[in-house]
Amino acid sequence: MRQIKVFSGSSHPALAEEICRYLGVPLSPSVHRRFSNDNLYIQLRESVREHDVYIVQTFSPPVQDHVFELLMMVDAARDASASRVTAVVPYYSYARSDKKDEPRISIAGRLVADLFKTAGVSRLLTMDLHSAQVHGFFSVPVDHLTAQPVLASHFGERELANTIVVTPDIGNAKRASQLARKLGVPLAAGNKRRVSDDRVEIDDIVGNVAGKHAIVFDDEIANAGTICETTNLLRKRGVTGITVACTHGVFSGQAIKRLSTLDIDEIIAANTVPIGPEKQLVNLTTLSVAPIFGEAIRRINLGESVSAIF
Amino acid sequence: MRQIKVFSGSSHPALAEEICRYLGVPLSPSVHRRFSNDNLYIQLRESVREHDVYIVQTFSPPVQDHVFELLMMVDAARDASASRVTAVVPYYSYARSDKKDEPRISIAGRLVADLFKTAGVSRLLTMDLHSAQVHGFFSVPVDHLTAQPVLASHFGERELANTIVVTPDIGNAKRASQLARKLGVPLAAGNKRRVSDDRVEIDDIVGNVAGKHAIVFDDEIANAGTICETTNLLRKRGVTGITVACTHGVFSGQAIKRLSTLDIDEIIAANTVPIGPEKQLVNLTTLSVAPIFGEAIRRINLGESVSAIF
Amino acid sequence: MRQIKVFSGSSHPALAEEICRYLGVPLSPSVHRRFSNDNLYIQLRESVREHDVYIVQTFSPPVQDHVFELLMMVDAARDASASRVTAVVPYYSYARSDKKDEPRISIAGRLVADLFKTAGVSRLLTMDLHSAQVHGFFSVPVDHLTAQPVLASHFGERELANTIVVTPDIGNAKRASQLARKLGVPLAAGNKRRVSDDRVEIDDIVGNVAGKHAIVFDDEIANAGTICETTNLLRKRGVTGITVACTHGVFSGQAIKRLSTLDIDEIIAANTVPIGPEKQLVNLTTLSVAPIFGEAIRRINLGESVSAIF
Amino acid sequence: MRQIKVFSGSSHPALAEEICRYLGVPLSPSVHRRFSNDNLYIQLRESVREHDVYIVQTFSPPVQDHVFELLMMVDAARDASASRVTAVVPYYSYARSDKKDEPRISIAGRLVADLFKTAGVSRLLTMDLHSAQVHGFFSVPVDHLTAQPVLASHFGERELANTIVVTPDIGNAKRASQLARKLGVPLAAGNKRRVSDDRVEIDDIVGNVAGKHAIVFDDEIANAGTICETTNLLRKRGVTGITVACTHGVFSGQAIKRLSTLDIDEIIAANTVPIGPEKQLVNLTTLSVAPIFGEAIRRINLGESVSAIF
Amino acid sequence: MRQIKVFSGSSHPALAEEICRYLGVPLSPSVHRRFSNDNLYIQLRESVREHDVYIVQTFSPPVQDHVFELLMMVDAARDASASRVTAVVPYYSYARSDKKDEPRISIAGRLVADLFKTAGVSRLLTMDLHSAQVHGFFSVPVDHLTAQPVLASHFGERELANTIVVTPDIGNAKRASQLARKLGVPLAAGNKRRVSDDRVEIDDIVGNVAGKHAIVFDDEIANAGTICETTNLLRKRGVTGITVACTHGVFSGQAIKRLSTLDIDEIIAANTVPIGPEKQLVNLTTLSVAPIFGEAIRRINLGESVSAIF
Amino acid sequence: MRQIKVFSGSSHPALAEEICRYLGVPLSPSVHRRFSNDNLYIQLRESVREHDVYIVQTFSPPVQDHVFELLMMVDAARDASASRVTAVVPYYSYARSDKKDEPRISIAGRLVADLFKTAGVSRLLTMDLHSAQVHGFFSVPVDHLTAQPVLASHFGERELANTIVVTPDIGNAKRASQLARKLGVPLAAGNKRRVSDDRVEIDDIVGNVAGKHAIVFDDEIANAGTICETTNLLRKRGVTGITVACTHGVFSGQAIKRLSTLDIDEIIAANTVPIGPEKQLVNLTTLSVAPIFGEAIRRINLGESVSAIF
Repeated sequence: MRQIKVFSGSSHPALAEEICRYLGVPLSPSVHRRFSNDNLYIQLRESVREHDVYIVQTFSPPVQDHVFELLMMVDAARDASASRVTAVVPYYSYARSDKKDEPRISIAGRLVADLFKTAGVSRLLTMDLHSAQVHGFFSVPVDHLTAQPVLASHFGERELANTIVVTPDIGNAKRASQLARKLGVPLAAGNKRRVSDDRVEIDDIVGNVAGKHAIVFDDEIANAGTICETTNLLRKRGVTGITVACTHGVFSGQAIKRLSTLDIDEIIAANTVPIGPEKQLVNLTTLSVAPIFGEAIRRINLGESVSAIF
Repeated sequence: MRQIKVFSGSSHPALAEEICRYLGVPLSPSVHRRFSNDNLYIQLRESVREHDVYIVQTFSPPVQDHVFELLMMVDAARDASASRVTAVVPYYSYARSDKKDEPRISIAGRLVADLFKTAGVSRLLTMDLHSAQVHGFFSVPVDHLTAQPVLASHFGERELANTIVVTPDIGNAKRASQLARKLGVPLAAGNKRRVSDDRVEIDDIVGNVAGKHAIVFDDEIANAGTICETTNLLRKRGVTGITVACTHGVFSGQAIKRLSTLDIDEIIAANTVPIGPEKQLVNLTTLSVAPIFGEAIRRINLGESVSAIF
Repeated sequence: MRQIKVFSGSSHPALAEEICRYLGVPLSPSVHRRFSNDNLYIQLRESVREHDVYIVQTFSPPVQDHVFELLMMVDAARDASASRVTAVVPYYSYARSDKKDEPRISIAGRLVADLFKTAGVSRLLTMDLHSAQVHGFFSVPVDHLTAQPVLASHFGERELANTIVVTPDIGNAKRASQLARKLGVPLAAGNKRRVSDDRVEIDDIVGNVAGKHAIVFDDEIANAGTICETTNLLRKRGVTGITVACTHGVFSGQAIKRLSTLDIDEIIAANTVPIGPEKQLVNLTTLSVAPIFGEAIRRINLGESVSAIF
Repeated sequence: MRQIKVFSGSSHPALAEEICRYLGVPLSPSVHRRFSNDNLYIQLRESVREHDVYIVQTFSPPVQDHVFELLMMVDAARDASASRVTAVVPYYSYARSDKKDEPRISIAGRLVADLFKTAGVSRLLTMDLHSAQVHGFFSVPVDHLTAQPVLASHFGERELANTIVVTPDIGNAKRASQLARKLGVPLAAGNKRRVSDDRVEIDDIVGNVAGKHAIVFDDEIANAGTICETTNLLRKRGVTGITVACTHGVFSGQAIKRLSTLDIDEIIAANTVPIGPEKQLVNLTTLSVAPIFGEAIRRINLGESVSAIF
Repeated sequence: MRQIKVFSGSSHPALAEEICRYLGVPLSPSVHRRFSNDNLYIQLRESVREHDVYIVQTFSPPVQDHVFELLMMVDAARDASASRVTAVVPYYSYARSDKKDEPRISIAGRLVADLFKTAGVSRLLTMDLHSAQVHGFFSVPVDHLTAQPVLASHFGERELANTIVVTPDIGNAKRASQLARKLGVPLAAGNKRRVSDDRVEIDDIVGNVAGKHAIVFDDEIANAGTICETTNLLRKRGVTGITVACTHGVFSGQAIKRLSTLDIDEIIAANTVPIGPEKQLVNLTTLSVAPIFGEAIRRINLGESVSAIF
Repeated sequence: MRQIKVFSGSSHPALAEEICRYLGVPLSPSVHRRFSNDNLYIQLRESVREHDVYIVQTFSPPVQDHVFELLMMVDAARDASASRVTAVVPYYSYARSDKKDEPRISIAGRLVADLFKTAGVSRLLTMDLHSAQVHGFFSVPVDHLTAQPVLASHFGERELANTIVVTPDIGNAKRASQLARKLGVPLAAGNKRRVSDDRVEIDDIVGNVAGKHAIVFDDEIANAGTICETTNLLRKRGVTGITVACTHGVFSGQAIKRLSTLDIDEIIAANTVPIGPEKQLVNLTTLSVAPIFGEAIRRINLGESVSAIF
């Protein structure tokens, strides 16, 4: 079997290290610099010839620099004769740009998928894409992992008798509906509407939430505006408690400030994006997905089924 | 400006004719045969050199023959030096195969999009794709039309005071939610679950429907199994009347038999797929989308904005 | 060496089973269904990750469904990370559409070859293409097998002193000429002319056939119209007996009816397409090419020469 | 309409000039040199920006230099922003490499077709490809012209009562059979066999030629070995006279020497390759195809049907 | 002729406005935003259907955001059916990454060129690429403009009797040598060596500079480290005065601080990158290249020769 | 590991043999012929299925035949199922066509790189490309070797106290500057100017050469015109002796005649192109690079670092 080499982009070295520990291989060194004209420079510092290369890079801010750095690392690995180059992108931010809801915009989720191919990505390993259809944007094989088992097992240890899963957006309810079914609890949905560029409004909650503990579930939390609206409305509708859960805890802009002032029992996020010390709210629980990525890499390398993990 | 030539595949010549009438051009003749070994044969019977060619083919059964015939017509037009070949596919059936919800299946919506490109399609003109993300599967420009204005104006002439829009599947509620907002009425959603290959179950209706007239809205009705489940449950929940509406009235298998036995006030479908005489239920209303396609073709040919139609 | 996995499309499972027996591997299971809107659905039911995958699908009627099913199986295998996907197409029906003898038609033999590439076929294994040039339509490696050794060894056991090989079409005489040379007998040729879509006429037989036993040889027999014309003319020219031989016994439309009424000593066909019980004429001999395909697959997998088989 | 610019490679400027006279446009100047390391150098000496460019280059010896020069001229025209670049290749020599009749050779007819695409050829204009299937090797539109009308009208002025068309190779008889049908005369065929690299043998003539005037017809005459063998055998079989006709009069190697010693009434060739003064046999008639190419270019530029020429 | 539409990315709107004034067309509006997860969002606010679209974006810092924004604008224009999309990139920063001088790095100049193609760029309009070979990295037509006429005419008004052109790097002296020849003055060259990531050393000046006025010429000045080294060494070698000239005045990092302390008579730069008010050194002269870009666009649109500008 | 098979084109079999000796493998046989119409014909005479194939072909005159032959051998190897096909091109002549210094020419260095890709080259192994940027023209991995270690070690055994390296062209001085640095001696440069198609002029020598021994170094010597000019000028400037060195000793046209009349102490060339017996000047030393190529192939096959050679 071809030997694994794991490199890390500059976005989330801690996760890359944790994946390497799972695999029992050292993280291969690389250089990341910026020329004086702001061009990026990268160098892989170990021979990758005929190796099975994995490059871990999540699309946390600054997103464009991180995307670009990944493309350059892939290009370098390919030209240096790696036998296979797998992009490991725990959070593929551009999955949110997945449709043309206004004229003359870019479906950037597809555009970036095509850029991956151009740079020479052999395959993609990613997690909880904003919509399942984004898988189809890629022309290379994709292993689409999910943090749901980690989240479900976290909730599974609790009393769920009077719980309801709430998705803030009825237009994107698939994943919340799966979680609800897995936990054996009912589902409610916010009727979300975007009123301006940076403001959404939840018109209504479809379904009965009064007297229940609500698990508000979304795939990603960025500036937490939607979460604010939803939790406020849930409180008005008489919920007894609120847990907020997501896979991708981006927590950008006003997010931390907003979340710290809301009456939320617990905030749960996977570690697909780095959550710096300034974002460590007291009610925040971070769940590691490194073992899932590590196991998937192990199986890809050995030619074993990845879908069998779930 | 380059002159328009419109050809029709064998799936829906009536619609092609109607589009041609809107445009004021004759439908160009073509031959469609089958060799004795079942290979398809097509021939365009008019020169297309340097013309702006439109080929109208909907993906009604037999779907594979119709897809194939379209690919061959496009290939023939391209090799015969058409300056541009637009595939006009009112019902793109494979949009339903848009994600990988089981291991080792094909995301055929993307596969067929790639086949289009290979055959030489310059652009696609289609309507109400099963999910908006399927737009991103194509690597050629897509004009994604919608029958919503036609449906909305049909409903707009009615009394809607006590009406609610119902989507059978909370996992695919975006379009119904748009219709509800456009009509100014609330939204409810079925919690749909697939129990076996050919049977779905609606666990529950999220939202309060009692005492209301329900407009059950889906993008497509095939064997009508989902519609049956939904209307039965709605009756149990006390609706006062039911209207069923869809863009794509495939009405295959048991559909006509099932629909004729259900207590439905009106069934509404656009004419994106041909609805034969044996399917003409007394409560069926067919709304023509030929003017929308005709107008889009006119604007594409003249280089005017298509999004301005809506 | 990478492990072989053989899957079968729904066209000819018996041949796939026979090939598997030759190889000593089990046929891997797969699911083939049709959605209610007539979309095809397929699923490979075993992990193919890093395996050497072979998908056996012949292009017997319904041809388009079989082509499509193959493309989807290939796409699924590729996205499921097969290390190589070989399409095994014993009868590539579209090889007949290999030239542009009328304006504005599709050279579908090339189009389908391009579709194969788009779907992700790594290589093709096929037999007795209608013309040798069709090999050049493919941009993936092709192993082009022939049933001639099987036919020749069948004839080789007979007395051939007074025999002549006859090709119905002097415009496509290469293969018959090779067979004649291999058997050490002379060659005659029909001067075939297509008079309408479904009727050919043999103007004349070029060469002297009187008093000889004629082996009428064609690569494929579909509705047997050409064979009828040829045998009738041969009888007029005084042949003493007639054997009809082909690789691909499609036997569609009027074929069986026609052949059963002709005065033919023996009809010989390979099993590249399934010949159902309703087609089992008393004078029909079917020769199996499964060992040739099995041996080719074995050699492809082991990296041994395939041309050395012949 | 976009303005035509015609350039000539260095293979056949006389034909390019003649085509330009037909079109009433001047031949655009270009430079063709060779660097001291034998690299080719070409420069187009007139702006081609947004023009409809035609580059006339036939594949006469030195073939590889001529192919290469064409690729470079196409590349230069494309990068200089020509709106369309049509390669005009009257004799596409590599059409002869159209199948894999031995293991591990290149189907160079397809390879060169792919090189055309890579260099940026928009379309191909060519004549009498060795086999009709070679059309399918190209992934750009092809207008495949034929010199048959010119040949047929040349023969049409003669007495044909006792004439027969003879193809030297029964394995490639399609075109001769078409000519025979057009002239209303019978067809005979040589049973050609290649015995070594540079020697063929005609085993036999299939069909009765005694007492007839034979028109030996082939698409191309190179070293005239096949023609020698055929005419010798025809004489033995008692023909009363022999005319030799071809589209592509390459006349290489021993050809002129051989042809001058044979008892042939007339040798007819189109001017798709230049026939130098040293090759002007007394019984040679050259027929110009410049009007056919000129008319095709005129129609391509104006967007009129090319197939209507024939 | 197709109508021009010019859009501007967010890097250098002033230059885009100036180009539009030259062309006499208004700058078309577009929206550039950032989602809360740092994804970019762009929208073209005018229909581009069948228009000849130009998108002006220079690669000044933040480079990666600007590259990405350009790719998205191109993608949006293409999917919105622009007939042609020309990327106007006055400063293509990644031209500096044009070779592999260390193992396992990316030749990013080629990578970005490929990304352009993937996004749908029809052609590129750029200026003074770091090396002329970078033109060959692009697979779309490139019009490679130069600021040399503007620089030369600026110097042409001066007394040059005792002047010498100096290139800091003998390994990249082509352009300086052309300028010297154009001005009719001699050339000297620094023997530049990179000692560490951010420090270069000029070992020596090849050529005699004593007693002369030196025009130090480079294609780009970023942090001005090379210029510092060069001018210091020139002073030691006895030059009487120093003028510094470049096309791309990036002036990043320590550049302004360094340049303000050096004894330089004049600093000259084109306006290919924006030079903010904080960078307006007293001895800085900015020369506009907007007329060159405007004229090139005018000619591209009209199909006139661009090389004729120079 | 996959087994190596080395084939040789017809350009330089001696080098191929020497590389095979280094590797300890036999040179695999192949056939190279020319059809009577001047088409090339090649056949690989050993199975390459699943082998690691290397094809050695240098681009010496006749260049176009050699390029073509290589493309055909690659195509044949790919279609015969080689697992990887590496083109070994010691002298890539078209690297000289690396920029667009006149309008409407072809950057043939890029064009040929694209042709390689089309033919199916998996990777390129080459040496001392005319400019380092040409590496970026290839879209397959390139291992770019250099003969500098061989040259440097040849000079390293000499007394270099009073030596200077001279590049004839200051516009292409990078490599000479590296050699000078490696030998620890100063650098001078000719100010080369092309006055006509086949004549260059060296205006001046930048740097002080009087009283020194000059090593005139260029990557390639073709007709030796530049060398003549340079050595004549050096003599005028008072050098004490002259050594001429290059990687690629093409020695075409007047080269041998010119070099034999010049007062040169020693001429040094690597064996990247064959130097026939008629070119064996008495002062010529040929240095073999076969061990470098052999070692690179060994490492590529074993998956070891190639850059570690240098």
